[in-house]
Amino acid sequence: MEISHLLKAGFGRRGFLSGSSLLLTGALLGATEEAKAKPAPDPAPPEPVPQEILDKGALLADLVTANHILQDQGVVDGYGHVSVRNPASPNHFYISRWLAPDLVTVSDIVELDFDCIPTNGDSRKLYSERWIHAEIYRARPDVKSIVHTHAPTVVLMGTINEPLLPIYHMGGFIGTGLPSFDIRKSFGMTNMLINDAAKGKALAQALGNHPAAFMRGHGGVTVGTNIMHSVGRAVYLKVNSEMHLQAGGRKIETLAPEEAILAEEGNSDFPKDWDLWKRKVMKG
Amino acid sequence: MEISHLLKAGFGRRGFLSGSSLLLTGALLGATEEAKAKPAPDPAPPEPVPQEILDKGALLADLVTANHILQDQGVVDGYGHVSVRNPASPNHFYISRWLAPDLVTVSDIVELDFDCIPTNGDSRKLYSERWIHAEIYRARPDVKSIVHTHAPTVVLMGTINEPLLPIYHMGGFIGTGLPSFDIRKSFGMTNMLINDAAKGKALAQALGNHPAAFMRGHGGVTVGTNIMHSVGRAVYLKVNSEMHLQAGGRKIETLAPEEAILAEEGNSDFPKDWDLWKRKVMKG
Amino acid sequence: MEISHLLKAGFGRRGFLSGSSLLLTGALLGATEEAKAKPAPDPAPPEPVPQEILDKGALLADLVTANHILQDQGVVDGYGHVSVRNPASPNHFYISRWLAPDLVTVSDIVELDFDCIPTNGDSRKLYSERWIHAEIYRARPDVKSIVHTHAPTVVLMGTINEPLLPIYHMGGFIGTGLPSFDIRKSFGMTNMLINDAAKGKALAQALGNHPAAFMRGHGGVTVGTNIMHSVGRAVYLKVNSEMHLQAGGRKIETLAPEEAILAEEGNSDFPKDWDLWKRKVMKG
Amino acid sequence: MEISHLLKAGFGRRGFLSGSSLLLTGALLGATEEAKAKPAPDPAPPEPVPQEILDKGALLADLVTANHILQDQGVVDGYGHVSVRNPASPNHFYISRWLAPDLVTVSDIVELDFDCIPTNGDSRKLYSERWIHAEIYRARPDVKSIVHTHAPTVVLMGTINEPLLPIYHMGGFIGTGLPSFDIRKSFGMTNMLINDAAKGKALAQALGNHPAAFMRGHGGVTVGTNIMHSVGRAVYLKVNSEMHLQAGGRKIETLAPEEAILAEEGNSDFPKDWDLWKRKVMKG
Repeated sequence: MEISHLLKAGFGRRGFLSGSSLLLTGALLGATEEAKAKPAPDPAPPEPVPQEILDKGALLADLVTANHILQDQGVVDGYGHVSVRNPASPNHFYISRWLAPDLVTVSDIVELDFDCIPTNGDSRKLYSERWIHAEIYRARPDVKSIVHTHAPTVVLMGTINEPLLPIYHMGGFIGTGLPSFDIRKSFGMTNMLINDAAKGKALAQALGNHPAAFMRGHGGVTVGTNIMHSVGRAVYLKVNSEMHLQAGGRKIETLAPEEAILAEEGNSDFPKDWDLWKRKVMKG
Repeated sequence: MEISHLLKAGFGRRGFLSGSSLLLTGALLGATEEAKAKPAPDPAPPEPVPQEILDKGALLADLVTANHILQDQGVVDGYGHVSVRNPASPNHFYISRWLAPDLVTVSDIVELDFDCIPTNGDSRKLYSERWIHAEIYRARPDVKSIVHTHAPTVVLMGTINEPLLPIYHMGGFIGTGLPSFDIRKSFGMTNMLINDAAKGKALAQALGNHPAAFMRGHGGVTVGTNIMHSVGRAVYLKVNSEMHLQAGGRKIETLAPEEAILAEEGNSDFPKDWDLWKRKVMKG
Repeated sequence: MEISHLLKAGFGRRGFLSGSSLLLTGALLGATEEAKAKPAPDPAPPEPVPQEILDKGALLADLVTANHILQDQGVVDGYGHVSVRNPASPNHFYISRWLAPDLVTVSDIVELDFDCIPTNGDSRKLYSERWIHAEIYRARPDVKSIVHTHAPTVVLMGTINEPLLPIYHMGGFIGTGLPSFDIRKSFGMTNMLINDAAKGKALAQALGNHPAAFMRGHGGVTVGTNIMHSVGRAVYLKVNSEMHLQAGGRKIETLAPEEAILAEEGNSDFPKDWDLWKRKVMKG
Repeated sequence: MEISHLLKAGFGRRGFLSGSSLLLTGALLGATEEAKAKPAPDPAPPEPVPQEILDKGALLADLVTANHILQDQGVVDGYGHVSVRNPASPNHFYISRWLAPDLVTVSDIVELDFDCIPTNGDSRKLYSERWIHAEIYRARPDVKSIVHTHAPTVVLMGTINEPLLPIYHMGGFIGTGLPSFDIRKSFGMTNMLINDAAKGKALAQALGNHPAAFMRGHGGVTVGTNIMHSVGRAVYLKVNSEMHLQAGGRKIETLAPEEAILAEEGNSDFPKDWDLWKRKVMKG
């Protein structure tokens, strides 16, 4: 039923069904080769695809695109990940299985609950740090998407005991500074990874109501109200960190707290960036 | 009438009608598919395209190329913009609608008056900061093209309270230093954007007769006597800012004021760069 | 005999026989054009390719890929090299003949003994510094693969008399710091190259049981238990060196020694990176 | 006569007649379209192409490749140039007409005498700074090729009043340091360009017997015994300058003078680099 819906439906938001989204169709619907080979016997007019199927397709296509953008923008490399909360089931979230972000396709996306168990029994290897996502979603109902980054300048900024402040309006979300999570404070000697619920909860607590946090000796995390938002913040966290480091010890005339608030409002969820960044990875 | 002119005309300056310029033909002339499908019934010799049509076509093609060059050279990313004054109507200027520069095609160019209203009733979303352009064109009749940049090193250079001086001859236009505009001085707490006429006028006043200005917590602006000129200055403002920062606190033996003036004359409007940069984005 | 084995066999680990590995088939087996042109006269079922042939093919394909990855990741340029110990003959190792790593194909791989003599009489020009590899393999039975790098930040880190410590978990293998080899201490004035057995032995002694060492005025070396391991360490030695330098004189809160040990265990042999890096060079 | 020689000849050193060299054939020989269209009427065996024609073809093909390599390696951008002395006529040299190096093809190469006049009456626009080349060739019979660079780190290194010393063996040619030319000392206020014979002579005098020199507020120059040599030195002048700047104020343990001499001998004319760099621009 869903097959015919989707195959007949055409295009959703942001070019759904184009490019990598085509893979999605099969993944969502389990279409077989035989089904495709048969001529459609039914002369009846096509039924519309239910909106929730289209929405899920668009969401997962955006999540795949976000994985590729984060690589292209230097936010992730072999490591790091991005997730999105399931709008139809807010205690679940979508994230790739264990895979470098640039290699992710729709068939690699898994849906996890807050115990980090796949909802459909998927047995593929998962990110050991999926707890970052589960526990932040649990603690922050306002958060719909999360990025975890190892960008070198973000890593470094989290180790030098200097506050990062917004150097230009694109860093408005940095406000009066970001918290820094030191895993050692609560867990002593570890491999630095957020690989269980307790560590995820501690990170979520350190994050508090902030848009981002540094993680000492590890990287950082950004959150947002949608995928574009968490991705945009991750990119500009990196850019602001680079600027701060490039300034050497010089005093930087950063944004005043109220300027930062106003600038953050103006940036919205970075739609102009998203269009540019998406085109770049689509051309890739 | 203009349709037949242009379709019969062939090539203008810098390969007009090649590549993205083909899009321009339709945009300028509103050619319909039917018109193209019909065989030309008139055996009369082709009439020449009026020069002003060719000139406008070449100008807008250069403006599109400038958008792409600025992305390729790291001067803009999702943000920033470039404009050119309309030579046939000097109180008007051409600029893209709201769009990341690298995505701009000729059909995205709008013509604005100094109140930032599209001259042809175009209702598409526009850059909130188009006032940068309107008010500088109003204040500076000598200026024919303007670039607004968020290049990180330009942003940073505008926040560290150190004067930028020309480090080599390609920065000759920097002369004895550039003004820095701090929006807070006149407007208090803002989102940092030049989003109305008053802010545009204040920026134009800060710019004065200089070729460029920094904008604290935001970026910079360069002006020129044509598109190549403002683009070249934007690139070398970035390069000189990078050099200054890379020098750390070291003393730099910069150009003497008279050397800077002579070097600036020698650079003209960077024609050798333009040819190189253009080829790069055309190949892209 | 081996020809028929391999031609009938199909695919081994990591897509053996695809891409550049096809070249390998001929190189390993000396297949002639005539042999390929003749129709197979034997109706008997195909014999399996012996496992050791498949294994060698996969190993050399990985070695070629490693050469390309090291260029793509900025670890080598015209210089530097990577080798792997022959598992079937542990006193021998595979390495390219004299060639920039990015140009290496399977036909360029030679097998050397610990006197750096080709085992099959190959008379092509060899790396003058192959002694780095021979003497470390001789001294360290646990080492199965070695990378020699000239990455500028690694070179620089080896000249500034500051210890490099792990800045994040990906640098866990750096532990409590790495040794630095100064060729001048034992050999006086040289061209800096490890171009004979004595210098190779001195370097191996300086390396001791460490995973990597700096070489003053020259570069560095990393070792591992397989190709992915030595390559991954080379990449992250570079990344950690960059971070250290980018921090300027600032104090960095590096990993505690026990954190480094645990992080190193978690990193294993960087399989997620390898998949990403390999895809990048395969697309190249 | 020369036409038939070359058309029948086939291939010389480094793949002569392949790729861009094909353009060369016509340029060297003035072959007309008619000549190409006619079937060869002569059944006689092909005459060999005289060696001097093949040599010139290979030399100019290498010069074009050098132009492209210098762009690809970040040594030049819109500006900078590379030349080679004519081995058959040592008071002449080959260089591109006025053009960004990456755009140069064989048809852009001109032959100049030491008064910077084209030997064949070519009237195209020339580099204003061709005097750099003429006067160094005049003063230094050992020099066969010259590169002039604006690489930002080389420019910067020439303005900070710190000596550059070889940081690793690839910088061996830097020896105990390079001279720095300040045009102001002899010529007062200028546009910084070496645009006449007097300035060329002053630069050549400052260069003395060194392999390279900095030019304050402008860039640098490297010389060599062939194209590969001057190009390789230009690349490693840039790399060593970058390292020096990246070290911040830290003390660098540079090569001892004798180490530098020995390392320089070992580097020869960078043949391994050339093969790599050439392949990169050929793939372009």
